[in-house]
Amino acid sequence: MDRVYNYEILKEIKDRWSRRALADDVIKEEINALLEAARYAPSCYNEQPWRFVISDSESKRIIIENALTEGNREWAFKASHLILVVNKKEFSHNGKINKWAEFDTGIAVGYLMLEAERRGLIAHPMGGFSKDRLFDLKLDWEEYSPIVILAIGSKGDVNSLSKENQNRENPGLRNDLKKLILKR
Amino acid sequence: MDRVYNYEILKEIKDRWSRRALADDVIKEEINALLEAARYAPSCYNEQPWRFVISDSESKRIIIENALTEGNREWAFKASHLILVVNKKEFSHNGKINKWAEFDTGIAVGYLMLEAERRGLIAHPMGGFSKDRLFDLKLDWEEYSPIVILAIGSKGDVNSLSKENQNRENPGLRNDLKKLILKR
Repeated sequence: MDRVYNYEILKEIKDRWSRRALADDVIKEEINALLEAARYAPSCYNEQPWRFVISDSESKRIIIENALTEGNREWAFKASHLILVVNKKEFSHNGKINKWAEFDTGIAVGYLMLEAERRGLIAHPMGGFSKDRLFDLKLDWEEYSPIVILAIGSKGDVNSLSKENQNRENPGLRNDLKKLILKR
Repeated sequence: MDRVYNYEILKEIKDRWSRRALADDVIKEEINALLEAARYAPSCYNEQPWRFVISDSESKRIIIENALTEGNREWAFKASHLILVVNKKEFSHNGKINKWAEFDTGIAVGYLMLEAERRGLIAHPMGGFSKDRLFDLKLDWEEYSPIVILAIGSKGDVNSLSKENQNRENPGLRNDLKKLILKR
């Protein structure tokens, strides 16, 4: 089955899907450009609660990669960079819990993924990881909450994936618009 | 002060900011196109937890508009449509709490806002509203959690805003990239 588009929408939104076949030749400048896209997301009180830990040293790479579930690590180990995304839990201006921290971080990561698509790169978000295994990063979990790990790469060889992952290397389908609208 | 872009990024991300000067001539087809963009966001287990209540009847319009804080209602009453965004709290496949429901809904709303920008429209997210005042929508708050109300419009007359809002009708600035990267 193919995706069905009923309306003309932004090319990068249409074309993006979460590929697993990665190659590892993404340069640091491109990573910075992806973060630049995230940076310009809107947020409640312009708090900008999104924060990133980038696997730009061997020790960080090992920690973040080992935190992934086996199913994710199996293909994501080929990523050029892994980026741990966390959100700052409290508002800076008053110290209260920011109820929009995860929502706003979602907007930022959404922008990052579209910028990756525009550049012909892949930014694949993974929820499957162990927070406990991130312990050695020595992040302050009172201040930050981890939300996803992104696998960043250029497009790789599909044949390098397991048979199972080769079979699911297709754009995901979506609910009908009708299902998304409540109280019609 | 102007925004500073250090890297080339998607035009719609660069150009978008949360304008308050709205006009109310957005047609239903365009609203559907914005929802189409949201529809194609990725999500954990492809759950697609985002749901929308659209102010397409007088009764829904009154309820959603009255739920806004006074500061938001002051300019957002001019919106062509108000869209209440809620997220489904549990995974459909196992009934467990979806820890990514708000994050994923953020991605979807981020896409909706960029599609609005591409079309020369405004989709301004507001966290300032009362959940209690949404009571008459008779949504099931066991199943759904409200996150933002979007004011949708085309570009309106800045002079119609209050003096205070005229003064802040400018693109918001952002943190330096350095602040967003932990453990450098």
